[in-house]
Amino acid sequence: MINIAVLGYGTVGSGVVEVINTNHESINKRAGDEINIKYVLDLRDFPGDPVEKVLVHDYEVIVNDPEVDIVVEVMGGIEPAYTFVKRALQAGKSVSTSNKALVAKHGSELMEIAKEKNINFLFEASCGGGIPIIRALNSSLTADEIDEITGILNGTTNYMLYKMSTENCDFDTVLKEAQAKGYAEADPTADVGGADACRKIAILSSLAYGKFLNYEDIYTEGITKITPADMEYAKELGMTIKLLATSRRIGDSFYAMVAPFLVGQSSPLYSVNDVFNAVFVHGNVLGDAMFYGSGAGKLPTASAVVADVVDEAKHLHRNIMTNWSSYALKLMDMDEVEGRFFVRVSDTTMDEVEKAFGDVQTIEPDDLPDEFGFITPVMKQAEYYEKISKLTGKVLAMIRVKD
Amino acid sequence: MINIAVLGYGTVGSGVVEVINTNHESINKRAGDEINIKYVLDLRDFPGDPVEKVLVHDYEVIVNDPEVDIVVEVMGGIEPAYTFVKRALQAGKSVSTSNKALVAKHGSELMEIAKEKNINFLFEASCGGGIPIIRALNSSLTADEIDEITGILNGTTNYMLYKMSTENCDFDTVLKEAQAKGYAEADPTADVGGADACRKIAILSSLAYGKFLNYEDIYTEGITKITPADMEYAKELGMTIKLLATSRRIGDSFYAMVAPFLVGQSSPLYSVNDVFNAVFVHGNVLGDAMFYGSGAGKLPTASAVVADVVDEAKHLHRNIMTNWSSYALKLMDMDEVEGRFFVRVSDTTMDEVEKAFGDVQTIEPDDLPDEFGFITPVMKQAEYYEKISKLTGKVLAMIRVKD
Repeated sequence: MINIAVLGYGTVGSGVVEVINTNHESINKRAGDEINIKYVLDLRDFPGDPVEKVLVHDYEVIVNDPEVDIVVEVMGGIEPAYTFVKRALQAGKSVSTSNKALVAKHGSELMEIAKEKNINFLFEASCGGGIPIIRALNSSLTADEIDEITGILNGTTNYMLYKMSTENCDFDTVLKEAQAKGYAEADPTADVGGADACRKIAILSSLAYGKFLNYEDIYTEGITKITPADMEYAKELGMTIKLLATSRRIGDSFYAMVAPFLVGQSSPLYSVNDVFNAVFVHGNVLGDAMFYGSGAGKLPTASAVVADVVDEAKHLHRNIMTNWSSYALKLMDMDEVEGRFFVRVSDTTMDEVEKAFGDVQTIEPDDLPDEFGFITPVMKQAEYYEKISKLTGKVLAMIRVKD
Repeated sequence: MINIAVLGYGTVGSGVVEVINTNHESINKRAGDEINIKYVLDLRDFPGDPVEKVLVHDYEVIVNDPEVDIVVEVMGGIEPAYTFVKRALQAGKSVSTSNKALVAKHGSELMEIAKEKNINFLFEASCGGGIPIIRALNSSLTADEIDEITGILNGTTNYMLYKMSTENCDFDTVLKEAQAKGYAEADPTADVGGADACRKIAILSSLAYGKFLNYEDIYTEGITKITPADMEYAKELGMTIKLLATSRRIGDSFYAMVAPFLVGQSSPLYSVNDVFNAVFVHGNVLGDAMFYGSGAGKLPTASAVVADVVDEAKHLHRNIMTNWSSYALKLMDMDEVEGRFFVRVSDTTMDEVEKAFGDVQTIEPDDLPDEFGFITPVMKQAEYYEKISKLTGKVLAMIRVKD
């Protein structure tokens, strides 16, 4: 029997208990042993809930119990999660977590402790909910040098952009609807501002490139400025707007960013709609691959957490190697990053635009007679900013184009 | 140092050698040891090729060399692959193979030997080329009861259907084009007749449901009867036609089939185009997930083979548990399988159709004035065949609808 303790009986925590109870037979078969929930830690009481029998309020009970093999951290936030996880690992207990903030900030240190102790610190649920992308990076795409990861990693913003694109409504309306449906939090800043996606691409990049990418180094732009007019242009172009979290290897250099992008139909990311998430990966021998699924939600996230528990049960005193190291991944200056730029302008002429940018692709939607848009050729960001300065005061919006 | 032997220096075999040479540094790091190609087995000589130095013509050299830890079988076909693989496993050497025919026919026996010997028989490349679906089923989706797998598992037919749909040309024209491009073989029977996809869904289902599904039990229909007129209807419906290999759990029963299906835009499989493959999986807690990538090709397939080699190097004398067992998976009678059916008819009236089927959805493309189409409600296949018998002689085509 393998005893586990679940820290936090919120949405994901109760999902973990439900998944283990619902599928106990197949889970035990795959783990090769019986998975038993010995403790659930929460400050609250849950009178009448079956979990009552194993509920504790004091973490000391768990960390000091030598029978606990695996700790599941699903509280979220940095503290006390960080202290609890670190102490669990130091006590020789493997940890499975869904906490992206914790992994992005303290992942290197926690993985190091797990390695020393020959146990595991796994976090499949931290990026892309139920999508098994972390294990794919760790143990499937091992023959490849990964040179790109691009993800739709935030379900809230993907839902909002999808609604804006299909129902022609504005940001505020869609945000209220998303909040009413429980897809967006009361304070939506981390989602719509891109901070959530930023932490996830930091984690995925660290695993893919074998060096630690500090999320604070990543240029991050949210979707708050996207308007119905932008969506009109996207439609005219046969494209759609997605919040992408992306990182790329260019020779020996790397860049990473989170920003809204125009995405064309040739990209498999184009048709990732609603609250779904997807991670596109390019490997130097594999070519294109994409992983698609529910990026959030109680049961999909719990499914990933429990899959980590199964893996830890199968490797109870054996560290599963990862490619993450504590060496810092240095990013190139954003000025050096190349791409194409879609720009909306008014009170100017094609002549002025061509004087600044040379030949460009222009878009003139019928419904927007007072303005027009154009797409630049591929250029470095510094070059774009230098050229666009000639149109100061005439620029309504700029959105990057995914190539 | 871990010594491997590659059986067969054809397309995939030379890809394996290329991948190991190109990415040797990162591969060795992930394997935790140096991967050395000690032998390549082929009946042919390759004068001037760097592989010449390690080329052998006699399998006895490999199987009797105790220094060989891992055998890579990329010859294809049942014999001599089966004999070679069995002997390698019996000699305590792990095996990685891309050979779907071998796995579908002898997988149970070969996995059993690997388990006894505490080594591994891995076959990531056998289904969906570079798409890491097998490892996902084995070690990622372990918290779930899988209740559906539906794949676009054959690149040749997906390319052909995509071309038929976008370029409005007929089966023979597209087949010739695919052959000219090297996407279809001179004898395309296994691809266009569905036999290739059938073996792959047999393998994936055996892993997902934990019982051996014999590919010979699977109802299999190819794409040879699909016409430009069918594509016309698909377009009218906002759908597309894909060759799907699918299996489902309905309570305690299972069904499996390979057939062309009409697929709507709400399915992530809708936009899997060209030679790409994808595997859609539904888990009882995970919900929907999809894995997308190159289903064939020298380097993507070799990427998957080498990822297996890395996994075997990391688990040299430790069997990686799978959910496959030798117990037979019994399929329900195809008569009992439920679905919706799209039917094209001529020389009949809506009245006659409604007399047979009740209310149906009708489609009348402008370009096909001498016929019309309809989609039935959900019904068992037996019921469909009984009802359609009332329209004998008037049916031009029937295609299933993916729900």
